[in-house]
Amino acid sequence: MSPRPQAGGFELATRMAHLTPSAVREILKVADQPDVLSFAGGLPAPELFPVEAIARAYAETLAQEGRQALQYSVTEGHGPLREWIAGRLGARGLPTQTDQLLVTSGAQQGVDLAARLLLDRGDRVIVENPTYLAGLQAFQSYEVVPVPVPSDEQGLCIAGLDEVLYAQRPALIYLVADFQNPTGASLSAERRPRLLELARKHGVPVLEDDPYGEIRFSGQAAPLLAALDPDQVIQLGTFSKTLAPGIRLGWIRASQEIIARLTILKQAADLHTSTLSQRAVARLLETFDYDGHLATVRDAYGSRCAAMDRALRRAMPPGAHWTLPEGGLFIWVRLPPGITDDAVFRAAIERRVAVVPGHPFFVGQDQHTHIRLSFSNRSETLIESGMATLGEAVSELAARPAAWSNPAHPEPGLDEPRVEGRP
Amino acid sequence: MSPRPQAGGFELATRMAHLTPSAVREILKVADQPDVLSFAGGLPAPELFPVEAIARAYAETLAQEGRQALQYSVTEGHGPLREWIAGRLGARGLPTQTDQLLVTSGAQQGVDLAARLLLDRGDRVIVENPTYLAGLQAFQSYEVVPVPVPSDEQGLCIAGLDEVLYAQRPALIYLVADFQNPTGASLSAERRPRLLELARKHGVPVLEDDPYGEIRFSGQAAPLLAALDPDQVIQLGTFSKTLAPGIRLGWIRASQEIIARLTILKQAADLHTSTLSQRAVARLLETFDYDGHLATVRDAYGSRCAAMDRALRRAMPPGAHWTLPEGGLFIWVRLPPGITDDAVFRAAIERRVAVVPGHPFFVGQDQHTHIRLSFSNRSETLIESGMATLGEAVSELAARPAAWSNPAHPEPGLDEPRVEGRP
Repeated sequence: MSPRPQAGGFELATRMAHLTPSAVREILKVADQPDVLSFAGGLPAPELFPVEAIARAYAETLAQEGRQALQYSVTEGHGPLREWIAGRLGARGLPTQTDQLLVTSGAQQGVDLAARLLLDRGDRVIVENPTYLAGLQAFQSYEVVPVPVPSDEQGLCIAGLDEVLYAQRPALIYLVADFQNPTGASLSAERRPRLLELARKHGVPVLEDDPYGEIRFSGQAAPLLAALDPDQVIQLGTFSKTLAPGIRLGWIRASQEIIARLTILKQAADLHTSTLSQRAVARLLETFDYDGHLATVRDAYGSRCAAMDRALRRAMPPGAHWTLPEGGLFIWVRLPPGITDDAVFRAAIERRVAVVPGHPFFVGQDQHTHIRLSFSNRSETLIESGMATLGEAVSELAARPAAWSNPAHPEPGLDEPRVEGRP
Repeated sequence: MSPRPQAGGFELATRMAHLTPSAVREILKVADQPDVLSFAGGLPAPELFPVEAIARAYAETLAQEGRQALQYSVTEGHGPLREWIAGRLGARGLPTQTDQLLVTSGAQQGVDLAARLLLDRGDRVIVENPTYLAGLQAFQSYEVVPVPVPSDEQGLCIAGLDEVLYAQRPALIYLVADFQNPTGASLSAERRPRLLELARKHGVPVLEDDPYGEIRFSGQAAPLLAALDPDQVIQLGTFSKTLAPGIRLGWIRASQEIIARLTILKQAADLHTSTLSQRAVARLLETFDYDGHLATVRDAYGSRCAAMDRALRRAMPPGAHWTLPEGGLFIWVRLPPGITDDAVFRAAIERRVAVVPGHPFFVGQDQHTHIRLSFSNRSETLIESGMATLGEAVSELAARPAAWSNPAHPEPGLDEPRVEGRP
């Protein structure tokens, strides 16, 4: 047995040997400097947050039920909020009872609790490649082995999955089926039933992380995986991209039996999610034009996505490639051959534009072939100027790649922005 | 290897075989019926919540910095809030830098994250006996073995601890040093340095869970364990008992090295605690008379505690015993010999008064000798009538114990309100 990791004079849990800060998180700190035009963070547009309606809901909640709203409450979550979520999922084709829902502190906690419910150390978890970074981090907390499965423009590749499931005997399949982070791709309607058929054949639960599903601005929605096979799928949702992330409200939807066990885990993890936030959002949703608000968000993101696409077409040198997403927050750009994501990151940040290098999202072999751009958080004007600058940077690299592929003075801490310690 | 537990058609993680709902949680549901006068839940007094000041702080935050307050934010927590906490801890004799603090969703999340940082499956954790139930639950999530150490009216017993630490080689010592839940006892000033000396000698980190430390209404405060040996102690604090639990705000205080690692774990667990709650509370604390508010809370709890003591003296039959706490929320009553906590629970609930049976708080051998009473959440008048009723129930049991020790018709689900699955 290898010695346990140490820090601060303490012997740590073995899992800590495999956990280091997210490289992207460090990059976001650089990107957050005031003079940097950032397309790095996966941030919703704050100017679209319904600030006044939220303020009114908090004010009314505190005025009319302040004492209850500030007291401890049940772990499962506030009844009226769960009823609203159940109704919403029903309207999306996923009939749901209130006791099939557990309110969480964002969908991230849903990933954590589902991992805690299902995963022993050493278990294998099927993930898309590339995949959501903080999802990987949550799995790493449980010392599991991520098994990357390729994805393409139609999402997770089903060809070969049967063999992988047979050979690897995973304990979980994790995916973002709609507008994935980082690729923006969605699992096609054709692949969904096939994925579920394989999951059921091999007895593997599916964790459907759905933060972006309601942010579709073009194309046709495919059914939620959970709608196609409710008992095989644990569905995670959140208000982070529809209302606001700062309130930290999400949910887990599963069978009653699973929710009962997740509730025990949630109680041990943090007792319950903020009573005040839950009651205020439940109150908001009583009168708020949620669909009207979503339409506004979709329109804005659709326009920004289109603006980014146009600007990239103008600015990017030959060899770059991207697929226009139908929703979500991200465009995933494959760089011209020979240009690395780190080089682009550095060249862009020198010009005070921030992007996210793509390789931390890949599991297994590093791939320095992509960058992730978020279009949700900047105006069309800024997107146009930012993409022009980015295009200059990439074009310059394309013209003289040698100078950049081995930089004499890499920026400290950014030369190797990889996520360490993946099993 | 034993087969993994199953639920909802899924194979679960091994840890789920040892996790069942908290018995106390089920009891609290019974106690929560509208016609029941409950002394069961460890609830702060809602009539003392500074509802208006909190409402103003949320309103101002949303009016003046609504977009930032509703956006994602850094995992470590909101700077001004951490600065305030650092100052407060400094004033309590524990000089603290801002980067020695991680904001958590209540102190419960602090227990969870500290366990995740330090504990491998099978590790041993020293706990007071009896101990905080949800702390035990958090540890059970990590499949560790709690090692109970007796406690008395001066808190954790130090005699024999050296041998226990030597023989068991625990990975952690967990305790509530002030006004413990359930006993109300505090670790004496004499024992504190001795505990830390032993912890240091054996290289065992100490997790000091301090939800009640600021709720002292009589006697002299002993120094925080963390103040006596800042590098050997991870300190957990919370606003749940001083402001309000429904906002779910707490913190972990440790060395920078430890906080950096806990931050990675927190990011994986739920990204960060509500930006809005953090900013609103930071704003509140800029102008709120926190010490004045605490004085009000202390006075009220002190009066209620005294009222409960007086009423118990009048109502309890000979043989019952309790020690008056100097702070916190609880009185821990040892029942007259031959009367069990379950019998008292049933007899009291028949009379529509709720208490918590003590045995779930014990680790190892069940002890049906105590009940826990919370005085924080009821007026002195209700405390007097409730204790009179409780005294009748216990007196009746004392008069005819045989009828109760083997009830013909136990209430469903309450006959065995034990916490299952302790390793």
